[in-house]
Amino acid sequence: MQADAPLTLILGGARSGKSALAEAEVTARPGPWTYIATAQAFDTEMAERIAQHRADRVPGWRTVEAPLDLAGALKALPPGQPVLVDCLTLWLSNHLLAEHELIVVNNGLMAALQARRGPVWLVANEVGLGIVPDNALARRFRDAAGRLNQQIAAQADRVVFVAAGLPLMLKGG
Amino acid sequence: MQADAPLTLILGGARSGKSALAEAEVTARPGPWTYIATAQAFDTEMAERIAQHRADRVPGWRTVEAPLDLAGALKALPPGQPVLVDCLTLWLSNHLLAEHELIVVNNGLMAALQARRGPVWLVANEVGLGIVPDNALARRFRDAAGRLNQQIAAQADRVVFVAAGLPLMLKGG
Amino acid sequence: MQADAPLTLILGGARSGKSALAEAEVTARPGPWTYIATAQAFDTEMAERIAQHRADRVPGWRTVEAPLDLAGALKALPPGQPVLVDCLTLWLSNHLLAEHELIVVNNGLMAALQARRGPVWLVANEVGLGIVPDNALARRFRDAAGRLNQQIAAQADRVVFVAAGLPLMLKGG
Repeated sequence: MQADAPLTLILGGARSGKSALAEAEVTARPGPWTYIATAQAFDTEMAERIAQHRADRVPGWRTVEAPLDLAGALKALPPGQPVLVDCLTLWLSNHLLAEHELIVVNNGLMAALQARRGPVWLVANEVGLGIVPDNALARRFRDAAGRLNQQIAAQADRVVFVAAGLPLMLKGG
Repeated sequence: MQADAPLTLILGGARSGKSALAEAEVTARPGPWTYIATAQAFDTEMAERIAQHRADRVPGWRTVEAPLDLAGALKALPPGQPVLVDCLTLWLSNHLLAEHELIVVNNGLMAALQARRGPVWLVANEVGLGIVPDNALARRFRDAAGRLNQQIAAQADRVVFVAAGLPLMLKGG
Repeated sequence: MQADAPLTLILGGARSGKSALAEAEVTARPGPWTYIATAQAFDTEMAERIAQHRADRVPGWRTVEAPLDLAGALKALPPGQPVLVDCLTLWLSNHLLAEHELIVVNNGLMAALQARRGPVWLVANEVGLGIVPDNALARRFRDAAGRLNQQIAAQADRVVFVAAGLPLMLKGG
């Protein structure tokens, strides 16, 4: 990526503080800041999680919903503005459930990230550190999430692993 | 926390060696050492795990059982003595199963830790790095454990992540 | 281990890039290289995973199948040649399913590693960072995998944790 448009991947577990860390890094830059939300509120629990995440953010964010067309959402943004995508793993899950061809979808995202002229933060879940799931779809999802994280990390300028709210640098400064 | 009473969080997965590392750090200090056990032996498997943990410890520990009233157990200890709490995640799980209000319970623990005049080690599980659990209670537990780990880590002087028995410093020296 | 025969443990989650990292380290040395495969193709999904792993490797590897007798496979190799075992966790799972005595099996492996005169890379899964599994066999497996990882890490010259394809040194340089 370009020096003026670094790509940062923030990787962590559930409730690891990865979103809060990403938001703190983004809001340390001049705004306006764009938050690309990939979550879909299929049920009450998910709606509550989304509302909680939104309530936790400081004011001043513009929110764009992109459960599937993340590449389109990135292309539509004015250049230069910091953007946070939260989260990549839900976006992947949305495409998997829609039975889309993941290689095509991931390549579309990689192209949009390379074309983007402005700093981007991507929040993603690490989901591969438990027992092999019983369920075949969960195993496919776990593999796909791991592969996407690797693909993004290879392109990223910075990769940060977060545990208990604390950052650990995997790549970059 | 005070310089003479550092708070250490030892975070890791199942069978990562986190208890052994915490015990080694505690017993490097002059005793007597207090071990606050939060496990409850509901069944044979759990009883065996508790007996195994106890057999693994060097002699010289005083054991206090505190499946729920961890704040009370900390307050009852003489000042200055090193104390190890093993583990925070089981304690949280005990309160969740008892349907206690977790915010109140966590705030009680934080107050007891801040009032404690002596070094404290807390062992906790990282449980958020696998696939999203099917079960709603497991999801609530996973979220609560992650939030508690963040809350403790923010107050701690040192946070150590353990994998395969090896420490990785997340905070402190 | 001996200076000319370092033992490296590469630890990571599913699709973390741990095999690719191990293969890159091995092939940076002069060949011939031996790949000891522990996977057994019980079903189509597993057969596809094995074929995918094999297709991902650069040419020039000799493959030895050792779903159970890993110690024997290590002893049968000519001295000096670099060898990659992928993966230790599947090998352990094969023994667990065969109801072998894990302490005996692990000690046999440790003896073979100590006797080996040549560099060895062991790839293993970290499986203990999710929610406690419902299933008793999965809990036994998770405990056994964690214990084996600790046992190997204590002997290893280098231990590398891999996430999103990026290495994090836990031990060694």
